[in-house]
Amino acid sequence: MVPEILGALSQIVGSDHVLTGKDAAPFEVDWRGRYRARAIAVVRPGTTAEVAQVVSFCREHRIAMVPQGGNTGLCGGSIPVADDVAIVITLRRLNRLRAVDPLDGSLCAEAGCTLSEVQQAAQAVDQLFPLALASEGSCEIGGNISTNAGGIQVLRYGTMRDLVLGLEVVLPDGRIWNGLRALRKDNTGYDLKHLFIGAEGTLGIVTAATLKLFPRPGSQVVAWIGVTNVVAVEELFRLLKRVCRDRLVAFELIGQAALELVLRHIPGARTPLPGRQGWSVLVEVADVCLEGELATIVESIVDEAMQSGWVDDAVISQSSSQAMALWALRENLSEAQKIEGLSVKHDISVPVSQIVNFLGAAESALCGQAPGVRIVAFGHFGDGNLHYNLSMADGGDNARLLEAAEQVTRIVHDLVAVHGGSISAEHGIGQLKREELRRYKPAIELELMARIKAALDPDGLMNPGKIL
Amino acid sequence: MVPEILGALSQIVGSDHVLTGKDAAPFEVDWRGRYRARAIAVVRPGTTAEVAQVVSFCREHRIAMVPQGGNTGLCGGSIPVADDVAIVITLRRLNRLRAVDPLDGSLCAEAGCTLSEVQQAAQAVDQLFPLALASEGSCEIGGNISTNAGGIQVLRYGTMRDLVLGLEVVLPDGRIWNGLRALRKDNTGYDLKHLFIGAEGTLGIVTAATLKLFPRPGSQVVAWIGVTNVVAVEELFRLLKRVCRDRLVAFELIGQAALELVLRHIPGARTPLPGRQGWSVLVEVADVCLEGELATIVESIVDEAMQSGWVDDAVISQSSSQAMALWALRENLSEAQKIEGLSVKHDISVPVSQIVNFLGAAESALCGQAPGVRIVAFGHFGDGNLHYNLSMADGGDNARLLEAAEQVTRIVHDLVAVHGGSISAEHGIGQLKREELRRYKPAIELELMARIKAALDPDGLMNPGKIL
Repeated sequence: MVPEILGALSQIVGSDHVLTGKDAAPFEVDWRGRYRARAIAVVRPGTTAEVAQVVSFCREHRIAMVPQGGNTGLCGGSIPVADDVAIVITLRRLNRLRAVDPLDGSLCAEAGCTLSEVQQAAQAVDQLFPLALASEGSCEIGGNISTNAGGIQVLRYGTMRDLVLGLEVVLPDGRIWNGLRALRKDNTGYDLKHLFIGAEGTLGIVTAATLKLFPRPGSQVVAWIGVTNVVAVEELFRLLKRVCRDRLVAFELIGQAALELVLRHIPGARTPLPGRQGWSVLVEVADVCLEGELATIVESIVDEAMQSGWVDDAVISQSSSQAMALWALRENLSEAQKIEGLSVKHDISVPVSQIVNFLGAAESALCGQAPGVRIVAFGHFGDGNLHYNLSMADGGDNARLLEAAEQVTRIVHDLVAVHGGSISAEHGIGQLKREELRRYKPAIELELMARIKAALDPDGLMNPGKIL
Repeated sequence: MVPEILGALSQIVGSDHVLTGKDAAPFEVDWRGRYRARAIAVVRPGTTAEVAQVVSFCREHRIAMVPQGGNTGLCGGSIPVADDVAIVITLRRLNRLRAVDPLDGSLCAEAGCTLSEVQQAAQAVDQLFPLALASEGSCEIGGNISTNAGGIQVLRYGTMRDLVLGLEVVLPDGRIWNGLRALRKDNTGYDLKHLFIGAEGTLGIVTAATLKLFPRPGSQVVAWIGVTNVVAVEELFRLLKRVCRDRLVAFELIGQAALELVLRHIPGARTPLPGRQGWSVLVEVADVCLEGELATIVESIVDEAMQSGWVDDAVISQSSSQAMALWALRENLSEAQKIEGLSVKHDISVPVSQIVNFLGAAESALCGQAPGVRIVAFGHFGDGNLHYNLSMADGGDNARLLEAAEQVTRIVHDLVAVHGGSISAEHGIGQLKREELRRYKPAIELELMARIKAALDPDGLMNPGKIL
């Protein structure tokens, strides 16, 4: 059976692009090494037509399919759920930039283009594709679309869902839907692209997308601001929104424990505000105005915040290299945490107005019910998304952490639900959070999702075991 | 049968809110007087729970339902398709503002709130709800959501779809889905709200929505610019985007024939640029900068455009009342056209980069195949959406116009399709454009839409005969 399958797939994509054994191994384990499964084969189609033929074949022979982009996901969404049950279809070879239209403010890229390549293509026509992620050198836009990637500029530009004008999708039955038209206004029926965005490959395979481009900002100012307490973070956010309005690109919260991890583990990292402890906020403001004006505006905001007692110290970037150094402190947080050791991670969001309440309630509950747990909190305060990660204050006590993992996650997620939030703000569900989804998602939503899945993938062969 | 139905509905909403005969008449004809049908009854629920009970009842008794908002739609979408076959459910009494959260930048309003009420609620907290339509005093946000309303600021803020954070929907089976959470990031499965946005009431009844608020602009400048020819419009757009970047709020095209209609029929309307003919562009730029700076920036853009030969004359608003007067010229175009008489209207979009090609091809084709037809073209150049309306040059020859209507629409829509556009940019499909949809929509899309419809409304009772 398997030799025939491999033979048939080789007929479609060429034998060089049907991988098994050692060649397949990199595609059979996720980025974190947490999910590993042997595929029947890893297939590398070179065109949309080949993707469609592979899907048709799999459907005919009732073989499950697992679409894979850059394989940088964090929930095992692009790894099969078990050995020898699925074909992995990697989109990596679909990496052509099909069109760039500066006047329309759009570009069309195939799913295997990396995010970085798309950013550069926009820059080449003096425009901006504003999705920005740590993994942008490896992650691919098909995956970004399927997981509705977020990142550090959501406050200003939205998530990937807000950046997609059109899609080309291979449906579970092997038909190709070309919905790539780049119209800003089109009210001719249901907006089908939104089915596939964020569906984590369970409703079809994204093979290309028309993406929205934005004007490049003329100047940027980044500030690292020491905030007196967590309520003051809210006041500072309010003030910045009032004065800077839509100039505000990012508003990131960094807890003291998180900053200490970066200073300890990342070579060259230096604290911007020596001698202080407490919460920090990283702010980016961008504009068309002259650089000087923007810095002046931010300085006066910081002055006002200091006088109101919300801020104790701050540094405002005087050059782009200084701005980059400040951002690096924030961007290296995940890496630093990895080096430090084990942690129980939570990618959660609550309404911005609930962040302070949530942080207080969670700290209180954890101190009470899980003493010895160290909270490392940081994230995108401005859009409500926090990375709320827990480790043992005694860094090496991994056994105790693992024992406590289920309990602390229950505490955190229950509080997220109480505060009207989401248990997966950015990372999606994949395999990792399926049980949590079942626990926290309203039943009516699970049921509607099941209906959509049944309507588009009645055979249930498209990335089974993910989300639902 | 009918008395029992009326009785049961009266039990749910109160007999004052079950209308028949003369009382029902205003709800049984559309705004333009083009679609008229007698409802079994017009029902006015007062709460979401009552809407759900009405829907459950109708489903149980297999009665078709037609949701209706402000009844300002242009495609007959909220009028039954025939006499005595449906209940009209008007959302007008669900008009509570449920919450306003300035820090979150969101508000929650029931479906029967008018757009104007929502705009004012945002203004009351010094924020902006940027949807702006001529009918904003009457249209309701449930209808705006169901039709994915556009308007004059789409270039900067997007359509209604981009402004919705969450929905409360009564499903065709009578269950209430509360998806009102106001999270900017939530990747816990399929994004269900997008099913109902723009679905024209065929998949469920929107009863409330959480809407996105924006910072209010600090200052605005409006300019009326006389452009030397239609290619120069493109150059001017490019220049404005380059200099003003995301300050550009609106870029509207007004043809000479369209302007003449306003000057002829609207009391007090005065041409901003006396003595010139040709295409005009209305531009709005908004910013946090001081008023003076913004006007200076726009002046220098106009100077550069004049030197390049793209612009022959321009006036830049010096006060907000002057800005409003300029906008009024554009906003009164539809009214002026109505007063002038019959016209064959087309609400189309093409990629911005195709507008010039389309205008040339359409004018050429119409001159050749339908001589005597006068083209009145105006619209949202910046987002690709034009109102392309045709009347007889000899204004009174309505009979000839009606004879030619099908032919000229065929010419226009075929050219729209050739240029990668949409035959209904803003107004939706309703009853009016069903046949056109079937003609121009790819079969695979019609099929996917039918699957979605079957999955959510298997009984087919929710606004039948609309879209599909």
